[in-house]
Parts: sequence; structure tokens; C-alpha cells
Amino acid sequence: MTVNVTLSATLAANEEIARRRRAGQRVLNLAFGEAGLPVHPALRERLAEASPENSYGPVAGAAVLREAAAGYWDRRGLPTDPELVVCGPGSKPLLYALLPAIGGDIVLPAPSWVSYAAQADLAGVRSIPVPAPPGEGGTPDPDQLTGAVLRARAQGRTVNSVLVTLPDNPTGRLARPETIRRLAETARELDLMIISDEIYRDLVHDRSAAFLSPADIAPERTIVTSGLSKSHALGGWRIGVARLTSIPLRDRLLAVASEIWSCPATPVQHAAAYAYTEPPELVERVAASRRLHGVVARAVADRFARAGAGVAYPQGGFYLYPDLAPLRRFATSGELASALLDEHGVGVLPGAVFGDAPGTLRVRVATSLLYGEGEEQRMAALSSERPIDLPWVAASLGHLEEALAGFTERRWFAAWTPPALAPASP
Amino acid sequence: MTVNVTLSATLAANEEIARRRRAGQRVLNLAFGEAGLPVHPALRERLAEASPENSYGPVAGAAVLREAAAGYWDRRGLPTDPELVVCGPGSKPLLYALLPAIGGDIVLPAPSWVSYAAQADLAGVRSIPVPAPPGEGGTPDPDQLTGAVLRARAQGRTVNSVLVTLPDNPTGRLARPETIRRLAETARELDLMIISDEIYRDLVHDRSAAFLSPADIAPERTIVTSGLSKSHALGGWRIGVARLTSIPLRDRLLAVASEIWSCPATPVQHAAAYAYTEPPELVERVAASRRLHGVVARAVADRFARAGAGVAYPQGGFYLYPDLAPLRRFATSGELASALLDEHGVGVLPGAVFGDAPGTLRVRVATSLLYGEGEEQRMAALSSERPIDLPWVAASLGHLEEALAGFTERRWFAAWTPPALAPASP
Repeated sequence: MTVNVTLSATLAANEEIARRRRAGQRVLNLAFGEAGLPVHPALRERLAEASPENSYGPVAGAAVLREAAAGYWDRRGLPTDPELVVCGPGSKPLLYALLPAIGGDIVLPAPSWVSYAAQADLAGVRSIPVPAPPGEGGTPDPDQLTGAVLRARAQGRTVNSVLVTLPDNPTGRLARPETIRRLAETARELDLMIISDEIYRDLVHDRSAAFLSPADIAPERTIVTSGLSKSHALGGWRIGVARLTSIPLRDRLLAVASEIWSCPATPVQHAAAYAYTEPPELVERVAASRRLHGVVARAVADRFARAGAGVAYPQGGFYLYPDLAPLRRFATSGELASALLDEHGVGVLPGAVFGDAPGTLRVRVATSLLYGEGEEQRMAALSSERPIDLPWVAASLGHLEEALAGFTERRWFAAWTPPALAPASP
Repeated sequence: MTVNVTLSATLAANEEIARRRRAGQRVLNLAFGEAGLPVHPALRERLAEASPENSYGPVAGAAVLREAAAGYWDRRGLPTDPELVVCGPGSKPLLYALLPAIGGDIVLPAPSWVSYAAQADLAGVRSIPVPAPPGEGGTPDPDQLTGAVLRARAQGRTVNSVLVTLPDNPTGRLARPETIRRLAETARELDLMIISDEIYRDLVHDRSAAFLSPADIAPERTIVTSGLSKSHALGGWRIGVARLTSIPLRDRLLAVASEIWSCPATPVQHAAAYAYTEPPELVERVAASRRLHGVVARAVADRFARAGAGVAYPQGGFYLYPDLAPLRRFATSGELASALLDEHGVGVLPGAVFGDAPGTLRVRVATSLLYGEGEEQRMAALSSERPIDLPWVAASLGHLEEALAGFTERRWFAAWTPPALAPASP
């Protein structure tokens, strides 16, 4: 086995933008999916209090954290045995370790988060992309799932699982309950495990959108993963949780975990345990975050829509996934994203890295780094009645409007070069 | 690919011992390689100070940590470019990610740490065990390395690397400089990368033992891994560092890291950066730890030697690897370890999990959990002139002495059953 992956596209884009900013360029970071908000002081205190904790602790995570996470799911209508909870240093490593623990190929929605397919490559399993239903995101179209799985099985492949992201990254859309019901039925017929990545669950900001987890209707086959990176802005603290379906599967996951990461950082586990008890001050903080993410994501969607892009309005998290084909032509979404960055200082991720066909001109726009620089601006955004009127947020939105206007105008001139200056090309 | 690993033997043993203790059994934990000492208050303070840090940060680790780790190696005669340092949530994940980053099969010393071979299985590469030279540990015998690699290559395998552990876990021995020189020469002839796991480097307590890293003599092909789990008792904080040989290799490692763990916990990175600057209070703490580990490991070795076991005296870390064959016969080291635990409440790990032939009756004895329970006892052990005379340490050593005496005596009676009481077996 040799490595066949490149640096995670989202992390790479974030580092490239940081590099350009250090070099003095004005760059709007709409590429990176970081929550863009400060840590709540209660969590800082819990981390500090737990600083004497230096033991490795159980591979599955401390009992106090597993019990708290079980309570979190209990309160969402999913009665959970703490023995079936496994904690990891982020939900990313948990998702990675689930691949060998489950075994076999995995069906992914297309488009979907950059790391699912890359992790499958790394783990030596094949990922099978199945498009999301029209207007939805984060789930393979149930109507196309059966065909895709049967074709792969006919080729002698073992297909054991299907993944959904609720709500979705990159599209910001939440799959409809009816779609999830049909997906779960199909998974049952095909005897597939379902991995439900619900890390944005508490950030559904579209009040008209109803959340249904496949675990609600197919608990026997649904593994739920989550974490505090998005809802509590703890990406850098690296803590995730998984809700398993059986002790044998848990034990296989723990075997992999024990050989890759041992356990999540112990002080972080203790702070996370507090967060998962959902004390009032953190419930309030998550609610404020959800509101802010929704207001800003919709404002950004407005800018794209006004510029003429095709946009499905975001329903959860801090992403949208506009189609820029109506604005200007490019051979690939990669070229489009490069032009937007180089010409207008706007960093987004090309749809191609999420599994779109390269010629599809969709880009993923992350909106959570618009809240400002530093704790003061971000706290102001969090508590503001009209965050998009804050000067720094308004300035960023202005930057985006100008960029999209300039980007679009070029369409009419791009093909035209003054004859006298045209280089003689062979 | 389906998972073919079981829970890490050392973590599993630790959890089993904890379970027995909760059930009221008196068990001496000589199975788990945790440093058994408190966190230094300066590191606790740094962690608390860094609690606002919640960004994902660079995959390679924060610049301040990479620079500090480079300084650590500089001061040990290995000039280091911070750009070639990669940090991970423990050295274990770094060792795992190096496998696909380097590619190909890997030669391991036999015996060696439980996770090397398990990680290779998981990563889909083959590990080739080569015995350590007589009386040494942590390195394949250079004389046998060439033959093993050429045989594997003749079978069409790609062999790209060889691993050493300096000083060693499980044997507690430090490979001689002359052996490392020959190993490095052989690696050059065979064009192998060398992975040098030096996580116990600062805990060499045998003053007559000279430390030579293969990076000193074959810097072009030696990757060094280390971390703070052992020297600073930060196992549960999960922080490790790797010193790479080239930018392309670093980039391959970062690609894997970005898809598995993103980055180590950010607050931990900041505390680790402080530790790697080696301020006086931490240098002093590491020196005291080293002294304590040495005194207690030697005292334990004395008990095994007096009981009649074969013991190579430990030189670094907190392990020894006695041969109990002279004491009592068992079919396997696993049966021996089970008997020692069940009959005498002494938990050790059988040599088989480190790659020994099952019939070889060596066991790994970890001595660092003898320092006491809780911060007060452990700090007393750390500052004591004669730690083995502290009542709780003396009691544990007494428990071990009794266990070994009882274990040995049984040898003379085990075959004898009173005829009247012998069950009629079919």
C-alpha cells in the first residue's frame, strides 16, 4: 500500500489563504469550515480544572463523557447505552476507524464532505458515489442506491454501508424526513449499515426543516457520529463521539482506535462531558450560534442569488453550495475557484473536491469566518440583533458583492483581447 | 479490507486490571506503560492559558511547537528544520501514518512494542520481525537484517523501512552505538528508511549506556519520533512529534494526517511547545523522573533475579523483560501471565504480544505504576532519596516478592494431586 491522498482540500485551502494574508493580500476566507466563534468560558474553566488528568484512560473515552453523550442522544429521542458510545479525537478519526471496523465498500452521497472518499482510499475500501435527490443534499438518492449497490455486488464487491450527513456539508441542505425514511428502508433491503454524520445537527437554522435521523427509524443499523467542533466551536480541541449499534461492532472500532490514537486528550474529555450535559449557558450559546450561522449564511446566499448564481438556500450549518455557471464559464470548478481567489481575493472550494464532475461549476462557500477577527468582534456578532450590519461583517459582504459583480462582468469581456496586444501564439 | 486487530494488548490489560480492582481484587499493575507521575504545574498552567485556542491550526502543528521541538533536537546534536517537524496526537498516530506515507513492508525488532505490528496489519503492510542481537533490545540484529530483506524482496515484496526503539520497550535495553552504526550501514546498503522511536530517550537511567540515534549517522534516511507521554507523564494529553527527512515525505505524512486527525488538540500543543523549550523546572522534573524510574526498575529486576528468573538489567524507561522459564513451566507466555494474575494478583504482559514465540516464557514488566496512588504519594516518590523504602512502594515490592516465591514453589507441587481427591476424569 502506498499513500494516494493529498492534503485535505479544506485544510489545504485554509493554509493557502493564511499564507496569502501573511503576504499582505486581502483575502475573504469562505473556504474553511471552522465555526469562527470563541470557546465558552465554562468550557475553558472545565479544561483548566481537568489539567491534572494525565492518564491514558479507556480507549472508548471516560465513563463521564460516554454517559453525558448518551444523555445528549436520550434527550433527542434516541435512548443510548453509554457502553455503546465511543469517543475519539474528533469525529474525523472515528469516521476513519469505522471503515475497517465495518469493512467493505461504502456508498457516499455526491457531493459530500471531502474527507469521506479520501478516508476510504486510505483505508483501502472503495467509495461508491450516488447523487443526492434533486434539491436535497447529504444523502444518496434512495431510488439510485439499490442499483448502485447491486451493480457493485454483481462485480464481486462487498458493500456494507451507506453514509448520510444531516444537515449537509457542502450543500447546507437537510435531507427531508421522507427521503431518510426511504433511504433507511432501502438500507434494510440491501442489509447496509448507515453511518449518519450529525455533527451539524444542532445547527439546523431553517425552522421549517424537520430533522429525522435514520437512527430514529432504523436503530439496528444506524451508527451516529457527532462532536463539539461545530456546535461549540471546538474544532481545535479535537473531540468527537460515536453511537454504535452493537458490542461486537464497538469492540472492532475500539481495536482500531487503540492502535491509532489510544484515547482523546483527557482534559478535553472532561470539558466535553460538561458540554454534553447541556447546561443552560451552553444551550443558550448554541442557540445564539445557530441563529448567527443562519442569518449570515442566508445573507451570503442572497449575494450569490442577486449576482445571478443558482442557490439552494442553506438550512443548517454554515455552508452553501451555489452554482456559478450562470455567471461565467470555466472548464472546471477548480479553475473557477482559482480565478475567484486570484482575481478577487475570495477563497471558496471547488465542487470537484466534494465529488462533483469537474465541469460542474458549483463551489462550496463557508460563511462562518465572516464573524470577525478575534474574540471581541466574534462575541459582538454572536449577540447582535443584526450581525450583518456590523461594520466588519458588512465590509466582508461588500467585498463579496464587488467580487461577484466583477467576476460576472468579466464574462462579457473575457473572450475579447485588444488585437494590437494579443500575443502571437503558435 | 476487514479489521484484523484486537484491542491493543497493553490498553486491554490495563482495563482488565482496573476491572478486577473495582471488583475488590488486590492487583499489582505491572502491565501498563504509563509514566505514573503527576503533570508538572507549569504545564497545567500553560494548558489553562491556552484554553481560548479553539482553531484547527496547521495539520503539521503550530509553528511555536514545531520550532520548540526543533530546538529540542538541536540541543541533542541533531540540527532540525521546523518545517520538517510534524506534530500529532501522540507518537502512536504519527507511527501509524508513517506506514502509508513511506509505503512498503517494514522490518521490526523482535520483540518490539505491541502496536508496531498491529498498525502494520491495519495499514495493509507486512511487518518482518528480525530478532534483536543477544543481550540487546529495540533493534533488529544488523547481521540478520540483510538476509530478511533480501528474502522478502526475492518474494516480490517491497521493503522500504526498518524500525528501532531507543531505548526499548519491552526490554528496557538500549542498543549499543556499535550496533546502531552497523544497522545504519546496512539500511544504507539496502536503501531502507529508518524509523527511530525515541520516546524514552530522555529516560535512559543507566549512566554507562551511551545513546546513539541512527539520525546522528544516517540523517538522510532516519525519521525520529518522540513525544511527551513518557518523559513528562503526559500520556493522556496525546502529543507526539516526528522529525522528517524531506519535504516530499513530510507532505505525504501531512496528507494522511489531514484525513485522519486534522491536528493535535490546540491547547495541548501550546503546553507542549513550552515543554520542548526545556525550561529549568521541567529539565529538573525529567531528571527526577529518570532517577526514580531507574531506581524502581532496578529494584524490581532484583526481585526477579533473586527469584531465579533470567533478567537483563533495564537501562532506560520503566520496563524489564525477565525470562521466567527457570521458575515454572507453562506451554505459553500467555498462560504464564494469566497464572501470575489469577493466582498472585500480579499483572504483566506475555512476551507473545511483543512478537516472542509463544513458548518463550518472557514477560514484560512495567514498573512505573508502583510509585503510588494519587498525586501526594507520587510526588513523595519523585522527591524521595530512597523511594523503594516508602511504605506503599515497599508494600508493592513485597507483594511481588511473595508472588514470585509462591509462583516458584508451586513448580515442585503442581504435578502432584492427592490421589483421594483427584476427580475421575473421562
